[in-house]
Amino acid sequence: MKPIGFVSTDADKIPRSWEISDVEGALVFDESYTEGLSDIKPGQHIYVIFQFHKSPEFSSQFLRINPPRHNRREMGVFSTHSPVRPNPIGLSILEVLRVDGNIIQVKGLDMLDGTPILDIKPEPHS
Amino acid sequence: MKPIGFVSTDADKIPRSWEISDVEGALVFDESYTEGLSDIKPGQHIYVIFQFHKSPEFSSQFLRINPPRHNRREMGVFSTHSPVRPNPIGLSILEVLRVDGNIIQVKGLDMLDGTPILDIKPEPHS
Repeated sequence: MKPIGFVSTDADKIPRSWEISDVEGALVFDESYTEGLSDIKPGQHIYVIFQFHKSPEFSSQFLRINPPRHNRREMGVFSTHSPVRPNPIGLSILEVLRVDGNIIQVKGLDMLDGTPILDIKPEPHS
Repeated sequence: MKPIGFVSTDADKIPRSWEISDVEGALVFDESYTEGLSDIKPGQHIYVIFQFHKSPEFSSQFLRINPPRHNRREMGVFSTHSPVRPNPIGLSILEVLRVDGNIIQVKGLDMLDGTPILDIKPEPHS
């Protein structure tokens, strides 16, 4: 696995989830992948798979956690969106605002500036 | 990145996409992660992130492809669900039939027997 690009944003506060975010920013891809971005259009939503690059290393103490979204009820990590997971993989569904060559402007960011992007997928049924 | 478990199925024909699959099988997790599976319930859908472990290595010839789902129209790889991607990561949304300890029985499989599982996430808004 290696990054195909990185998140770029100057937002100083990043919401906990894309579901409650209207933060805008850019996904900046290595130019060698620009051709693979064709057919991504403004208005659509893309599934962005990324690396939680700032998360502490996973250990068994993180198997059950108390997520804020569930009023701190204890839950198994795989029923949560915790950034501390056995494999530090995140998934956000973002709105495409514009595509300029190797750069996709998006809305709904919940990733930190500098987050490594691993993959982009279209929405299901598209 | 290391597998947290593997897909087990004896289906001899695996559909091209979970969106058109009713194949049943099991996700068998390493027992060290069993506690993290708590709160996964029958009837819900889970997002399964996995490795396309049988795909050929990506090269620039796969940046634009002609997917069957789009009548073989040429498209950028990131607008498709092609298994040949810069990072060989797949995403399937599967229905949970039953949870028995470290094993989740699912419906909707589009992964081959032996596929390494990297992560499980809940549906959005859950």
